[in-house]
Amino acid sequence: MKSRLFIPGPTPIPQAVQDAMAGPIVYHRGPDFPELLTGVVEDAKKLFPTQDELFLLSSSGSGVMEAAVVNTLSPGDRVIVAQAGNFGARWTDICNAYGIEVVSVDGEWGTSIGAERIAGELTADASIKAVLTTQSETSTGAMHDIPAIGQAVADHEALLIVDGISSVCAHPLDTAAYGVDVALTGSQKGLGLPPGLAVMTLSQRAAAAAENAKCPRFYFDISRYRASLSEGRGPSTLPVTLISGLRAALDLVENEGIAEVWNRHARQAGAVREAIWSIGLECFADSPSNALTAVSLPESIDGVELMQRLSQSYGAVIGGGLAHLRGRVVRISNLGFVTDDDIRFIVQALEETLAWMGYRFDRGSAIAAADKALG
Amino acid sequence: MKSRLFIPGPTPIPQAVQDAMAGPIVYHRGPDFPELLTGVVEDAKKLFPTQDELFLLSSSGSGVMEAAVVNTLSPGDRVIVAQAGNFGARWTDICNAYGIEVVSVDGEWGTSIGAERIAGELTADASIKAVLTTQSETSTGAMHDIPAIGQAVADHEALLIVDGISSVCAHPLDTAAYGVDVALTGSQKGLGLPPGLAVMTLSQRAAAAAENAKCPRFYFDISRYRASLSEGRGPSTLPVTLISGLRAALDLVENEGIAEVWNRHARQAGAVREAIWSIGLECFADSPSNALTAVSLPESIDGVELMQRLSQSYGAVIGGGLAHLRGRVVRISNLGFVTDDDIRFIVQALEETLAWMGYRFDRGSAIAAADKALG
Repeated sequence: MKSRLFIPGPTPIPQAVQDAMAGPIVYHRGPDFPELLTGVVEDAKKLFPTQDELFLLSSSGSGVMEAAVVNTLSPGDRVIVAQAGNFGARWTDICNAYGIEVVSVDGEWGTSIGAERIAGELTADASIKAVLTTQSETSTGAMHDIPAIGQAVADHEALLIVDGISSVCAHPLDTAAYGVDVALTGSQKGLGLPPGLAVMTLSQRAAAAAENAKCPRFYFDISRYRASLSEGRGPSTLPVTLISGLRAALDLVENEGIAEVWNRHARQAGAVREAIWSIGLECFADSPSNALTAVSLPESIDGVELMQRLSQSYGAVIGGGLAHLRGRVVRISNLGFVTDDDIRFIVQALEETLAWMGYRFDRGSAIAAADKALG
Repeated sequence: MKSRLFIPGPTPIPQAVQDAMAGPIVYHRGPDFPELLTGVVEDAKKLFPTQDELFLLSSSGSGVMEAAVVNTLSPGDRVIVAQAGNFGARWTDICNAYGIEVVSVDGEWGTSIGAERIAGELTADASIKAVLTTQSETSTGAMHDIPAIGQAVADHEALLIVDGISSVCAHPLDTAAYGVDVALTGSQKGLGLPPGLAVMTLSQRAAAAAENAKCPRFYFDISRYRASLSEGRGPSTLPVTLISGLRAALDLVENEGIAEVWNRHARQAGAVREAIWSIGLECFADSPSNALTAVSLPESIDGVELMQRLSQSYGAVIGGGLAHLRGRVVRISNLGFVTDDDIRFIVQALEETLAWMGYRFDRGSAIAAADKALG
């Protein structure tokens, strides 16, 4: 059975991307590479959109989160980490590893941290150097209101550093309009590439902070990337196959239009939410993201079994609950190049599987609700 | 024209690897991933060979070099860096970034550092914590004698850390027999994969050093990898496509036999050397590696032009000289899954191009010498 991915990364890989990656390897020191790299870097800015500097790194999402920290901060600095989930907590782990003091503004998993709480901490402590947060918290499906958080930070010296790893393409992360100094994403998320390529943008303020940042760094040192990018190269071997794939993915985004990409994610995530509400289930997140929907399950339904049955009977791969949510939550993602028909397919499969597992509801109501929302 | 790679990474990608990577993405949190990952980790040990712990990281070669340093050393430690080329010098740059003091045992590019010089420094300074060196120096085509260096280090407390990034598959890097504590390689080298996946082995001594190492680290912190590897996972998203490709590459190595893989590299590198000697050219390296041959060019031949003509007329991509060797040296690699016919092709193309550029030699002697060496 063909497997169909509904997980918040890795996301389905479009054929055009697959084909681009199967083409001849472009030699990273050869004559054709600089044009490819500089074109990709410029066009990737349209995803946020941003006019900030943009860098491509060979790492997973955690790697580029570390790059954001070590390039802008110093041991002993105090920062706010605003988090209510697994990936927000990763900011704290990274800061702890580098001797950066964390003022934690946290909440229950599934909630989003209000901007006023961040504003309060910033006013109380003028020494705060940065606010680190997550746009779409992949473990809970919750979205943080980055425009509001940006306004809260705007009156202060602190930098705003946003993990947009699983939100870019699903939501705008307009760095200038929102006041974001460092924005991140990863290849296996909205861009529909395999994992291994990460993206970081730096505002002028963040670039200035990087001049004075004292965290030790080599591989993630952005000054090495900047120096080589000016010649159309990376400081070490860039993942050239993923960069060829990114060229194809950016062409797909360009053809559809980034605004329509955001609209599509909003429409599809809305359809999943309507579907689950229509059969008496709840979203786990207070402020759901358009990248994925975490579904709270009734006690009678084990999420691990639900995932297994969807995979075995339909080839549909959805995400499970992380940490203490294992079995209690499933996560259905529409991130990346997902079609409306894919959404109909997963909602139908979910209905049939829940019915088979003994959950009682009006059969057909989920697919009807999804259909209506998809329009 | 089909492009054919003769560069020391990225190397040609075998069809079986290409096919494996084009298959369905394996979900890194799904039920099938642990078996894939643990199998690949075990089989990758046969490349060195080693029985040490082995970790797969999502990074380029420079990233895994940093991982070797930050997991085993502390700021203020003193180390020996034995280097005579661009990639050896990278060890110094990484150590400098982390406040590790480097005793440089260096030589002219193209030479290899004698083990006795390292032994002398170790005896003179009992505080040395590690010796860092490069098995095959990709910028010069020179090989360091790791068994001899291992013997020199064996009488001391210092760890031996070896960049085998472009030597694994071309030469054994037998960690137990040679006394190597940390060995490294990268996906786009001997394994014929795209770049983005790196490999690190750790001896028990290195693992013990990691317990006390004070360099700050998160992304490259090996304790995170060890904890998740025991469950068949990575600590963050591993490059699953490259891991599927690695499965196919390891199967190819298994089918051929690792000893025959080493023999093939020796035979092919030997054929390239015989070919260039037969037409009055010289190897740049005193002790040439079996991964690549750096060819010293006469003043009448510009290496950049030679590369361009080989690419334009034959689709043959060779490496140029790095840094001050630009134009003076070209690098012809047989690393990865290169066939004897590929070697005949590049030698023939080199002959024709050199003749076209006005270099005078007995036509046909290079291909005859290569043929004889290939047997």
